[in-house]
Amino acid sequence: MSKQTNAYGEVRGAVLIGAGDAMTAETFRAVDPASGAALEPVFSSAGSDHVEAACALAEAAFPSFSETNPEARARFLDSVAEAVAELGAPLIERAMAETGLPRARLEGERARTIGQIRLFAALVRTGDWVQATIDPAQPKRVPLPRSDLRRRHVALGPVAVFGASNFPLAFSVAGGDTASALAAGCPVVVKGHPAHPGTGEMVARAVRAAVAACDLHAGVFSYLPGPSNALGTALVADPRIKAVGFTGSRGGGLALMRVAAGRAEPIPVYAEMSAVNPVLLLPGALRTRGTALAAGFVRSLTLGAGQFCTNPGLLIGIAGPELDAFAETAAAAIRESAPHAMLTADIRVRFERSVAEMAARPGVVTVAHGEATGPGGAPAILLRTAGARFLADPALTDEMFGPAAILVAAADAAEVARIVAALPGQLTATLHLDRADERLAAGLVPVLARKAGRILANGWPTGVEVAPAMVHGGPFPATSDGRTTSVGTLAIERFLRPVCYQDLPDALLPQPLRPDNPWHLTRRIDGTLSPAFGR
Amino acid sequence: MSKQTNAYGEVRGAVLIGAGDAMTAETFRAVDPASGAALEPVFSSAGSDHVEAACALAEAAFPSFSETNPEARARFLDSVAEAVAELGAPLIERAMAETGLPRARLEGERARTIGQIRLFAALVRTGDWVQATIDPAQPKRVPLPRSDLRRRHVALGPVAVFGASNFPLAFSVAGGDTASALAAGCPVVVKGHPAHPGTGEMVARAVRAAVAACDLHAGVFSYLPGPSNALGTALVADPRIKAVGFTGSRGGGLALMRVAAGRAEPIPVYAEMSAVNPVLLLPGALRTRGTALAAGFVRSLTLGAGQFCTNPGLLIGIAGPELDAFAETAAAAIRESAPHAMLTADIRVRFERSVAEMAARPGVVTVAHGEATGPGGAPAILLRTAGARFLADPALTDEMFGPAAILVAAADAAEVARIVAALPGQLTATLHLDRADERLAAGLVPVLARKAGRILANGWPTGVEVAPAMVHGGPFPATSDGRTTSVGTLAIERFLRPVCYQDLPDALLPQPLRPDNPWHLTRRIDGTLSPAFGR
Repeated sequence: MSKQTNAYGEVRGAVLIGAGDAMTAETFRAVDPASGAALEPVFSSAGSDHVEAACALAEAAFPSFSETNPEARARFLDSVAEAVAELGAPLIERAMAETGLPRARLEGERARTIGQIRLFAALVRTGDWVQATIDPAQPKRVPLPRSDLRRRHVALGPVAVFGASNFPLAFSVAGGDTASALAAGCPVVVKGHPAHPGTGEMVARAVRAAVAACDLHAGVFSYLPGPSNALGTALVADPRIKAVGFTGSRGGGLALMRVAAGRAEPIPVYAEMSAVNPVLLLPGALRTRGTALAAGFVRSLTLGAGQFCTNPGLLIGIAGPELDAFAETAAAAIRESAPHAMLTADIRVRFERSVAEMAARPGVVTVAHGEATGPGGAPAILLRTAGARFLADPALTDEMFGPAAILVAAADAAEVARIVAALPGQLTATLHLDRADERLAAGLVPVLARKAGRILANGWPTGVEVAPAMVHGGPFPATSDGRTTSVGTLAIERFLRPVCYQDLPDALLPQPLRPDNPWHLTRRIDGTLSPAFGR
Repeated sequence: MSKQTNAYGEVRGAVLIGAGDAMTAETFRAVDPASGAALEPVFSSAGSDHVEAACALAEAAFPSFSETNPEARARFLDSVAEAVAELGAPLIERAMAETGLPRARLEGERARTIGQIRLFAALVRTGDWVQATIDPAQPKRVPLPRSDLRRRHVALGPVAVFGASNFPLAFSVAGGDTASALAAGCPVVVKGHPAHPGTGEMVARAVRAAVAACDLHAGVFSYLPGPSNALGTALVADPRIKAVGFTGSRGGGLALMRVAAGRAEPIPVYAEMSAVNPVLLLPGALRTRGTALAAGFVRSLTLGAGQFCTNPGLLIGIAGPELDAFAETAAAAIRESAPHAMLTADIRVRFERSVAEMAARPGVVTVAHGEATGPGGAPAILLRTAGARFLADPALTDEMFGPAAILVAAADAAEVARIVAALPGQLTATLHLDRADERLAAGLVPVLARKAGRILANGWPTGVEVAPAMVHGGPFPATSDGRTTSVGTLAIERFLRPVCYQDLPDALLPQPLRPDNPWHLTRRIDGTLSPAFGR
């Protein structure tokens, strides 16, 4: 490690239970996916006793942390952002070694991670998430008087977060789920992804340092690295955990949903699982700029070795010379594309299996197949089938996680509409269109809005802006819960619930509902938004 | 029926599929619970073919209904309210015959039902539920430009609503679940409760008349009466249904949760199931006004034969002469209380069984037992146990649906705190306190806020105000989803999901997100709430 490493940037291979480190006999290693070589040090595998200890601490931290005022909680989030930033170049170097992702991508992801935490800090400061609502008493109302009613949103309780392999910073230890859960006032127990344990530990130590610097209860954050499914199951099954954030495979997400639904007290699981992110190539756009579309498609397809939740894995167009020309141009670009190493050997194996299975299905032809290089390098692949085949075979909507897509050649616009209507839930849906396509598109947009959380025109779905209007979610099976988003400020609502206080003496009211409004919140009083004085 | 019955007030015993009536060979009858006599006419039992037809119509209605503008949708809701009001005295008379509830109670419930629908109409007019959010493009941002992002909330899809027996108007065919789902833009298929089929059909015809009067797609509303569990299961299993609203027993709610979780596409179930609504009698309050508390308690306990979700079924106090005096006064009032008929013979049987089981548990004594009269009359009952017993026996927290409560005599304040900490999720929690009790109460309120959706001081939980600040919900097992409420304006959010539109041409944007803001919404633009001009 370079000299820039600060105290909490160290990688000991520990389990972090609040302020304490634990080392275990059972260990695992990180692997450099580009070389296949194991990396130092060995990492402790957290077990059920660590789940028990972390959840007990998180529960102990809940009463004080969930009632931190907006300024204190925002300062904590800002401290987390600063601590992650202070990890400096060693964090990027460790992440490069563990994931095979290039420096620029990881630097961009770090900026996004830090920006995301700061965005939640700003959101927390507004206090809008409290949704403070006051219906004053009407003692003289007939036939019955009305009580004084005051409502606020409060944190659900301790939250389990599962780091994702494909975004080792932005969707991992201090990623979107952790940031939004902490912003809501929920202590977080992270199940660290075994593909980037060094990166995970460095970030975990940064969060812990912020907890200490802000004098918060140490149980606000714990970090449980490990490769076993049993660890994740034990965490979700713990009765003190009240919600789960997860980004990963459909199989993993469904398994956690089952565990959560089978608890004595079922809890919400926010699992962002899989999508093929359909891209519709409408006739006018194909005619006027098919070549540019093919180039843009292959860039989006191969970005980060296709290991994006929003990777464009399904193209839909109307059969004809323009679609053939698009396919040929895309095929040429795919054959020339440089393969990236995939994140893990396991992902690589599953990618090749899913592509082989898809390519072997009836009516599916392989249009282009890039070349594989090195132990981790995954070739880009484009398959093709006819609209009627696609409609007849639901397996063709399955995700191939990696740089692979299937092009569906529909017979006509009516078949395009039928294909869209038959799609399962998606994270995104994209339209490439010219003005001449708008009439056709107008019929498709309302249907797509029932299928996806985000609809794009004339862009590519990879790249998710962190902003108030963003929705990174969508109907099942894209996610476990289409009512939410895992990116953007709206994500905080996943970890809140409403509580009403009726006729409580002022001294017993929580701060945000007191008559003197000590948090200076904008509150809805008798139906009207009433900004606090002095804001 | 009196002459006041209007055209849609008739009771034919039909299944209402959109604008059409269906009659079936399989039938059932309503029963007057006070006399046990069967009522005219016979009612058709809806079956799986009716589920199919109603869901197909609801799906067909979704595209147009979900995009109705706020004024059109609000006018429809106002029409529903008016149509229910126009049912007049015959509705009340029919409901009295079918439920055994007294006229004044049902007139009050009708007023509440109508007021609730009008409240949602007013909410829909504000457009706030759209949560329109616009993050304008930043084409010159470095390192990457930002796309134009626009988010709105849209209706989930067709919703299944299960009418409750205990509120034949306010939680039934046109009750809170139906009103909030329609307000969100979701077509509704009601599974009518077999205990009040005539009342249900009258209200269903009123809703249908409003659908027709407002020129909406007939599939916006269907009504499927029937006594079988298979009917409800088929409805929840239908792939076109996207959410479920239910008020009823824990067993019924859990069964629907399992069906919903087992679908190819799992869907949210909002089930309001059971609660014992703990009431804490703090020492100061007991000392200064124990007699008045006992009288208030018995009034609340016996209201509507105890058939309220918010019935006070659990009292907690510190053992001593004040608590004994309270128990004696309450016992006297219970012995003098006039028994009401329960809603159905089945509810009566289950009530007696649950009371007998509870009274037979170790350490439970019967303090008072009212007298039973008539076939439906249920006696009020007060049981008592010690705090240590209560802590040792989780079955003592089970609901006895009806006018029964258990008084827990805790050894001291610390045991009260342990009892509160061990409670399962509740709809409400109540504190009776004097100023001298505030210190003790201050330690209990944060714990109660994790256990219940609503916390009351110095009142009784029966009586749920329909208002923006109300929360009629709470952690499992009080409800299936503690993140929501089934009463009050917040209930609309159960039936909405967010969708983001990125870089869409203006002509393809939905109305609420267009630059010219044709719905005149207050929108959040670049983070700031921006009222429309002219509002």
